[in-house]
Amino acid sequence: MEVLKELDRVYLDYNSTAPLADFLGDKVQNWLKYWGNPSATYQKAREARSCVWTAREQLARFIHARPLEVVFTSGGSESNNQAIKGLAEKFRNSSRNKIITSSVEHPSVKSVCEWVRDHYGFQLEVIPVLKSGHLDLEKYEKALDDRTAFVSIMYVNNETGCIFPIQKLAELSHKAGALFHSDAIQALGKIPVDAERLNVDLLSLSGHKFYSLKGAGALYVKKGLSLESLIHGGPQERKRRAGTENVLAICAFGAVAEKGEEVLKQNQEITQWRDQLESIVEKSIQGVRFIGKNHPRVGTCSSIMIDGVFAETVMMNLDLKGYSVSVSSACHSGSIAPSAVLLGMGYSPSEAKCVLRVSFGVGIEWESLKKFADVLKEIVDRLRSLEGQQ
Amino acid sequence: MEVLKELDRVYLDYNSTAPLADFLGDKVQNWLKYWGNPSATYQKAREARSCVWTAREQLARFIHARPLEVVFTSGGSESNNQAIKGLAEKFRNSSRNKIITSSVEHPSVKSVCEWVRDHYGFQLEVIPVLKSGHLDLEKYEKALDDRTAFVSIMYVNNETGCIFPIQKLAELSHKAGALFHSDAIQALGKIPVDAERLNVDLLSLSGHKFYSLKGAGALYVKKGLSLESLIHGGPQERKRRAGTENVLAICAFGAVAEKGEEVLKQNQEITQWRDQLESIVEKSIQGVRFIGKNHPRVGTCSSIMIDGVFAETVMMNLDLKGYSVSVSSACHSGSIAPSAVLLGMGYSPSEAKCVLRVSFGVGIEWESLKKFADVLKEIVDRLRSLEGQQ
Repeated sequence: MEVLKELDRVYLDYNSTAPLADFLGDKVQNWLKYWGNPSATYQKAREARSCVWTAREQLARFIHARPLEVVFTSGGSESNNQAIKGLAEKFRNSSRNKIITSSVEHPSVKSVCEWVRDHYGFQLEVIPVLKSGHLDLEKYEKALDDRTAFVSIMYVNNETGCIFPIQKLAELSHKAGALFHSDAIQALGKIPVDAERLNVDLLSLSGHKFYSLKGAGALYVKKGLSLESLIHGGPQERKRRAGTENVLAICAFGAVAEKGEEVLKQNQEITQWRDQLESIVEKSIQGVRFIGKNHPRVGTCSSIMIDGVFAETVMMNLDLKGYSVSVSSACHSGSIAPSAVLLGMGYSPSEAKCVLRVSFGVGIEWESLKKFADVLKEIVDRLRSLEGQQ
Repeated sequence: MEVLKELDRVYLDYNSTAPLADFLGDKVQNWLKYWGNPSATYQKAREARSCVWTAREQLARFIHARPLEVVFTSGGSESNNQAIKGLAEKFRNSSRNKIITSSVEHPSVKSVCEWVRDHYGFQLEVIPVLKSGHLDLEKYEKALDDRTAFVSIMYVNNETGCIFPIQKLAELSHKAGALFHSDAIQALGKIPVDAERLNVDLLSLSGHKFYSLKGAGALYVKKGLSLESLIHGGPQERKRRAGTENVLAICAFGAVAEKGEEVLKQNQEITQWRDQLESIVEKSIQGVRFIGKNHPRVGTCSSIMIDGVFAETVMMNLDLKGYSVSVSSACHSGSIAPSAVLLGMGYSPSEAKCVLRVSFGVGIEWESLKKFADVLKEIVDRLRSLEGQQ
């Protein structure tokens, strides 16, 4: 698969949003013709409904699920909100009133967990993640008991790329009689997301982090599990998500999922480039650490802590040189607060402010990463020398 | 403005979803380039952010609102859910514990009102709409009191096209100290939607009923009114709606809004065709009534009750002849239940099952409507003669 590229710039913020698969351009023109409402019954509607069904099958096949286990949403944030609010409704008046999550979740998980704690009176237990990237398994096992309603722990962290042992965590959760949700948004296309093997109850996915259009995400809902809708109204998605389907973005999501195995392969080949990049940076810049380096990580992400240099300043300098990187998940941008993920791993605010996130994927070239390492060194050297002059 | 047309078919279900504005085709190709995440800070993100801002200004200008009063959502159902759940959160623990709505609301209003009644203990008062299409104003005024938290009444009904006197209803609501939300999804582009003049607190809008892409809607939120988010997470839309913006669909929504006055004019010119159509049908088919005919209606919709003939059967026959119409809002399709809107107006289930909804707009031609009248007569005659033979 190839992606739309920027001319004269190097995009290194795939975890925020991935460039579009290039084959979507032509297809979009064709899909625009399917503007019928999939819920209606005449011919114009049937062609739209058929496209949505094809996409459902394509995505289901890629994540080893049944087509009807896929509920299309407007995106990852909605999927996470639907999962957690839906589970909270389910357990609201039961003796299981505890929710377990991790200290490094995306805001669309963290803030909903806090919302259901504050509004529905759940106890919220946040399992710490260590500086190494490891979830504190001992605390997790201890937290699981017969009062636990459900667990929500991400598959891959959006800032560090660290992979959590979801299969095992779900198994332990089920042993305690609790349900298990995972935000797998950063995993899709980078490592296999196999709903059957992972044996989770709910999985959140997003199209635009996976080379597809913004506006479509999905929630995998295991067969037999019924959840109250977040968005009530019409009977779309078998009454699990009201609102006219975003046919275009759903078709695109399905079409990329159809190429999912190829994407996985391409992304896995990149791992060596990430490792080479880190090795060059480590040698050329003093006082550098890579967050989660010794923890299982996806191969498309490097979280670089550079001692004494504000990542925000580095990022702005990189932007001027034509490199797009991030200082934390894009969702936090514009705010000056240090990354909640890094704080959640036990780093201090001043350490967290020195972390740059570099993420890439299909379409990146080794030459660009190599040049990036040079430019980064140049910028860090300059900033440090300025610092020295003051 | 022109729209994408179907070859050899006549589309008469604009209230379900409108055909795409034809100028969007080329523009979409261009907007696909803006795949950056608007929340990030580097150049690729800034171009996407700038597009979203332009769209916000375009839509705000068309509905006479301030740009920051526009909150983009994934569509009309989400807007309605956000409005009503948000208002319910606001008044949850106050002495104002009554919600007023009408008997003909869209499922995405009706079912959320019922949800907050059942979950938060609100009293829900449903004001009847008469067979004529009129809201029972006396009951409305009586219902408004110092226990009323908010009102949610639609601007234009999706099945009959009847226009409710929102400006007056909002004024009465405000006098009682209650807030006012209106589902204006079926009004946009058909009659002026002027947030300032209507003086409502919240207005729901949808792109795809307005010749734009599926996947973007909006909620007008009056300056100064703060609502808790339905979808929690990142700080998008000034912390009012989390989730990466659907840049493409938002741009399209704005671009059509930019042509909003032209759309209004085109739709208003069609009114005479609707009237001529009804006049032909009335003369050619016996036992026909037009729901809401003597009530203020938008000019792009005709709700036709044909005595003793199942609308579902007529619809299927019309489909075979190349005409797409609806028997009720598309959201209900596939179900055999009679239209809740018509039941809400006091029609019996057997009457409601004889109502066909014909809706059109920009791009329709008089010739098509005229031929439709002929084909409709032909089908009704045949069905009635078959009925006679049994």
